[in-house]
Amino acid sequence: MDSASVIEQALETAVSSCDVLGCPPRLAAAIRYAVFPGGAWVRPKLCLAVAAACGARHSPLVEATAASIELLHCASLVHDDLPCFDDAAVRRNRPSVHRAFDERIALLVGDALIVLALQNVARAFADHPESLPGVMLALTRAVGAPVGIVAGQAWECEASTPLEEYRRSKTGALFIAATVGGALAAQSDPTAWRILGDRLGEAYQIADDVRDAIATEAELGKPVGRDAALGRPTALGEFGIGGAVARFELLIAEAIDSVPACAGAEPLRELLRQEARRLLPESLLQRAA
Amino acid sequence: MDSASVIEQALETAVSSCDVLGCPPRLAAAIRYAVFPGGAWVRPKLCLAVAAACGARHSPLVEATAASIELLHCASLVHDDLPCFDDAAVRRNRPSVHRAFDERIALLVGDALIVLALQNVARAFADHPESLPGVMLALTRAVGAPVGIVAGQAWECEASTPLEEYRRSKTGALFIAATVGGALAAQSDPTAWRILGDRLGEAYQIADDVRDAIATEAELGKPVGRDAALGRPTALGEFGIGGAVARFELLIAEAIDSVPACAGAEPLRELLRQEARRLLPESLLQRAA
Repeated sequence: MDSASVIEQALETAVSSCDVLGCPPRLAAAIRYAVFPGGAWVRPKLCLAVAAACGARHSPLVEATAASIELLHCASLVHDDLPCFDDAAVRRNRPSVHRAFDERIALLVGDALIVLALQNVARAFADHPESLPGVMLALTRAVGAPVGIVAGQAWECEASTPLEEYRRSKTGALFIAATVGGALAAQSDPTAWRILGDRLGEAYQIADDVRDAIATEAELGKPVGRDAALGRPTALGEFGIGGAVARFELLIAEAIDSVPACAGAEPLRELLRQEARRLLPESLLQRAA
Repeated sequence: MDSASVIEQALETAVSSCDVLGCPPRLAAAIRYAVFPGGAWVRPKLCLAVAAACGARHSPLVEATAASIELLHCASLVHDDLPCFDDAAVRRNRPSVHRAFDERIALLVGDALIVLALQNVARAFADHPESLPGVMLALTRAVGAPVGIVAGQAWECEASTPLEEYRRSKTGALFIAATVGGALAAQSDPTAWRILGDRLGEAYQIADDVRDAIATEAELGKPVGRDAALGRPTALGEFGIGGAVARFELLIAEAIDSVPACAGAEPLRELLRQEARRLLPESLLQRAA
């Protein structure tokens, strides 16, 4: 199976534990709606790729970890879209969860997905508990406070936002969880994999800022120009468009260089090159220039 | 130390891992505000009492589990108070989190507390990972979908609410986590402790309904008559006031009877009797009669 099919199946396994008789039906439907059909699955693919580079393929531990990282990402999107934050009507080319259902259900879906993500790894590691604390700590660090997604969102609520902490917390932390979690689930030492997550996370955030500024709604599947409309700090404000693209390319080069010597290093580096082209395709680079 | 001091210290340990340099200051302050000063700490006290009955005293595993259960309870209160749900201005005699801070911060505090609760057990069990999956599953089951707090809240969003599922999910589940989690953290078989959590949870919910209907705001530390104002299903609607009090007393008797034979059984039964009198004091019983 290709990585997308693996991730789809691992997500289905997780979600189907909620979507059972006895679950309030609108909640069950909204949880499924928030997860499927998915986005690009950047983070779980990265998790699988790092685990494969460490020699772990077809591992239920890795697959559950990858799915949980995606569930945590989905949770953050649902809460981020709520009226009190971005008030986003559209996500992945269709109504956001609070528009398709309602605000109360969207609030609960985010909560349920956080719980489900962590439950899903606990379940998967039941027969390998020795690896569970490390994976749990990598995942929870990435999404809570003081330095995870929640902290990143909270920087938006402060009078002034330190850009680096903001970006690291809001985006970088879950990328680091993807690389570190992939290594841990593969029973490997995660130390060397941290920098890859860090660089990719920042590159991804910069690409997101660039796309929000110069891509079209059709290209993105959601409204563009939101950062400017919401007065959010972005890489464009900091570096200008040319500087942002240059920084993106530097970060990708650093990410590729950071891949430690291992059996699967070269396929992973090739994947990173492809991902860079997907994030900022030639057409957008020309538009930026 | 008495159980309140133990719980306070365990909560402080957990919260202080968020409240560090690098955490957005308003988020850190709001997390602390949501947790301290605490309420009656019914659930963590129950968790400690069950673990003590199983022979575990002064156990960091038990104390972390108890604190995490309280953090999950606090998370549910913060989200439950939000404008899209109960729109509660007051909690524990002072402004609710979204009134003291703002709605965005309250949303993030709830998320952060869920993550912190599960991170806190992962950290505490790092040297006893064999017990972590069981505790994690007991806690996550109690707060997510299909049968935890989130599911309970979601029943309020359905056209019709099955009363028993609603009560079991919204209140009972976390009481079961307190008894089962206490036994598991004490490295004991949790099976016999499930029924105690179930009966106490329902008793607590009924007492809450009775107090909401006949206590004063000064007695409760929050506005009364909210269930009626919000059109919520309650035990009073189902059984009438006399029937609700009778059911409460039956449930407490069943809870006391369910305590399995163990070294600490008698002190635990006495604690349950005291708790019943605290939940529905003589003065309220006279008012109900």
